[in-house]
Amino acid sequence: MPDAAAPAAPRADLIVTNALIVTADAGFSVIPDGALAVRDGRIAAIGPAAEIGRDAAEVIDAGGAILMPGIVNTHCHAGDSLFRGLVEDLPLEPWLQTVWKAEKAILTRETTRLGATLGLAELLLSGVTTAMDMFWFPEETARAARDLGMRVATGGIFIDFPGVDFVTMDDRIAAAKDFFAEFEGADDILPTIMPHGTYTVGPDNLAAAKALAEDHGALFCTHAAETVAEQADIANRYGRSVIRHLDHLGCLDERTVLAHCVWLDDEEIAILARTGATVSHNPVSNLKLASGIARVPDMLDAGVRVTVGTDGAISGNDLDMWMALRLAATLHRGATRRADAVSTQAALAMVTREGAAALGALDRIGSLEVGKFADMILIDTGPVHAAPLFDPMTHIVFSTAKSDVRDVFVSGRRVVRDGVLTAIDIGGTLARVRALAPAIAASIA
Amino acid sequence: MPDAAAPAAPRADLIVTNALIVTADAGFSVIPDGALAVRDGRIAAIGPAAEIGRDAAEVIDAGGAILMPGIVNTHCHAGDSLFRGLVEDLPLEPWLQTVWKAEKAILTRETTRLGATLGLAELLLSGVTTAMDMFWFPEETARAARDLGMRVATGGIFIDFPGVDFVTMDDRIAAAKDFFAEFEGADDILPTIMPHGTYTVGPDNLAAAKALAEDHGALFCTHAAETVAEQADIANRYGRSVIRHLDHLGCLDERTVLAHCVWLDDEEIAILARTGATVSHNPVSNLKLASGIARVPDMLDAGVRVTVGTDGAISGNDLDMWMALRLAATLHRGATRRADAVSTQAALAMVTREGAAALGALDRIGSLEVGKFADMILIDTGPVHAAPLFDPMTHIVFSTAKSDVRDVFVSGRRVVRDGVLTAIDIGGTLARVRALAPAIAASIA
Ligand SMILES: [Zn+2]
Ligand SMILES: [Zn+2]
Repeated sequence: MPDAAAPAAPRADLIVTNALIVTADAGFSVIPDGALAVRDGRIAAIGPAAEIGRDAAEVIDAGGAILMPGIVNTHCHAGDSLFRGLVEDLPLEPWLQTVWKAEKAILTRETTRLGATLGLAELLLSGVTTAMDMFWFPEETARAARDLGMRVATGGIFIDFPGVDFVTMDDRIAAAKDFFAEFEGADDILPTIMPHGTYTVGPDNLAAAKALAEDHGALFCTHAAETVAEQADIANRYGRSVIRHLDHLGCLDERTVLAHCVWLDDEEIAILARTGATVSHNPVSNLKLASGIARVPDMLDAGVRVTVGTDGAISGNDLDMWMALRLAATLHRGATRRADAVSTQAALAMVTREGAAALGALDRIGSLEVGKFADMILIDTGPVHAAPLFDPMTHIVFSTAKSDVRDVFVSGRRVVRDGVLTAIDIGGTLARVRALAPAIAASIA
Repeated sequence: MPDAAAPAAPRADLIVTNALIVTADAGFSVIPDGALAVRDGRIAAIGPAAEIGRDAAEVIDAGGAILMPGIVNTHCHAGDSLFRGLVEDLPLEPWLQTVWKAEKAILTRETTRLGATLGLAELLLSGVTTAMDMFWFPEETARAARDLGMRVATGGIFIDFPGVDFVTMDDRIAAAKDFFAEFEGADDILPTIMPHGTYTVGPDNLAAAKALAEDHGALFCTHAAETVAEQADIANRYGRSVIRHLDHLGCLDERTVLAHCVWLDDEEIAILARTGATVSHNPVSNLKLASGIARVPDMLDAGVRVTVGTDGAISGNDLDMWMALRLAATLHRGATRRADAVSTQAALAMVTREGAAALGALDRIGSLEVGKFADMILIDTGPVHAAPLFDPMTHIVFSTAKSDVRDVFVSGRRVVRDGVLTAIDIGGTLARVRALAPAIAASIA
């Protein structure tokens, strides 16, 4: 039987049926007993199971599981998973000095690829289909993502001092251009320019980085306003706060993603709203590193686009977007004593359609709608902690765990099946990480 | 081969070997490549695997998994899992009115047993071997715990208005005495008297409840200082804050567990330290219900015993002690901007030995030491998010998920095997919960 939305279309490649579909479309519509058809990697039809039918090369009966868009993580350093749990109990600034020492000692192109595979595998297994990632040798992260079958927004790193990869700014610009050339036109890689932060990249290089991003239609991502110490440092150096400094340099617009934004005054929030820059809220990292609690309800009230990130496992100490989502929805209720400070729907939007919009990709991902890539996940509703289940959006935000993610699809390709990666054998990666662990431990001794 | 600690003793019933043992003993010793022998439900020997040997009726090779004490959850309402996700986006006071309406409509002895089984099963699957639980018909919760093979601290509920169970205080006292009689001398049930809170139980009944607990050597547990509104209400009624009121009534001593304690001044913290009363910190619930952020670092500095609870799934919306543990360790770092506000070891203690001490049971549970009950869990270190693993205590506190709990033992009996309950078939419970769900939804319509 032809499907409902495109009666004359050819047979679907895949139909997922008997699912409780949470679309995350503009109206956040839910389809009980729904089905979704995929053709050529895109959603060809979505609706009641009875209307969609079962005429496809492959039919997956979801058995009542929740089908929802793949999660979008807007801030991550996947390669830093090599250092998980290595540097503990320090606030950001001394912590970062130790992290850089470990990175310098350990990271080569090869170990960066290993770390990126480790981190991205954790994300993909938990249902993250797209991640924005900042790390040395970003093309290694992009290749790792491609190996796994997921999307990543990444690209040239900018930092004023010699990194683990390059020494001069000219080398960095050349490497960024090479990245653009290698992944030009790709669906799976969203090219980005990634200066580390205002305290590690001077004004001229920040402006040059933004210009380079604009020349190539790339995204722009940097750390911003993470700690009180950083705000004091920038105000001392430039006579302006971090957000005003970035605005002054022309770095803020709808292609900009700012990680953290914990310390903002009202006017800085207004600047973010006016420029359309996105905030990537990283509550797990902000709590662990004692950075503070971001003013998320105030940002939402002002119309700032707020999304969610994990930050790296070296701060986190894992890459659990479900914990980050739960905190995005609850932390601010506790901190402000307003039980409706962040609504269930607003929290769900942050990790789906708002995340996609931040990456300039809402036309392709971030919701389950006809024409978009079939990036989607199946959430098992069988576990004890899923009973009873009155409202699927409430369940997703407040009682779903990463272990409930059973299957993950990117462009309709099943990249996780029953909790197992299908594109690579992660066992080899884990063995190599464990073999490297003694050297990693020694790197900060 | 006889084991090292007791060379002349008879053969062990069970040896778990090839484990990374985190003992949670007073020195928090860790035994790499360790083994633990069980005889008659108690720990007969613990040490290096080579010394303990393999002479037992059953030998379990842990394959490098972490072996640690079972988790102690000091505040829960397991039966409320029937109402998971039903009442959303309200602060405590209006939320509680709706909860009580739903409970009145739904709860009988039979449905209470069903809900208790649901909630306790979730806890046991996640590695909680002992829970302090407050709910209507507490003997039903005790029986559900016994069916599952776990320990529970519970007993007579006190509340001044008619509950879903009894109408008069005389009935409540008689029921509490019946509970003591039914479970007298049991290892698995820790008898407790449970007045709901200072705002729902008047001074005379609170004092009578404490006297009844003392007569029977029972624990005493109540909600305290959860919200600003509650503190204002009690100050208005009695001219004293909640903690001072409880102290004035003689309700605070080492057998007392106070749930929440979000709003305390310095003198109230000093009162808790002086009396030896325990605080059950419930961060997931406190954030979700917009109650606030408890002063945990100040309590620890003052010498107050702090433990961790989940509260009920109707507030939470699950019973995830791993998320509660992570928040106990990180929330206060973020809130105070001190990266060492709660140490890794202090957090781990809260869910193991401090929890046991709060229940007057540190001589029997709460750590892996010779002579104690063999209440213990195996944590799978195979998942991607467990690599690399530099320090097992850091891994337990900051990157372990409930899904990593592979096996659970209570008194040496394996009550969870490879993530499946062994004592009951949970499928029947889940089917009954789902059949009841429409009536539950209708109860607040
Ligand atoms: Zn970061
Ligand atoms: Zn409670």
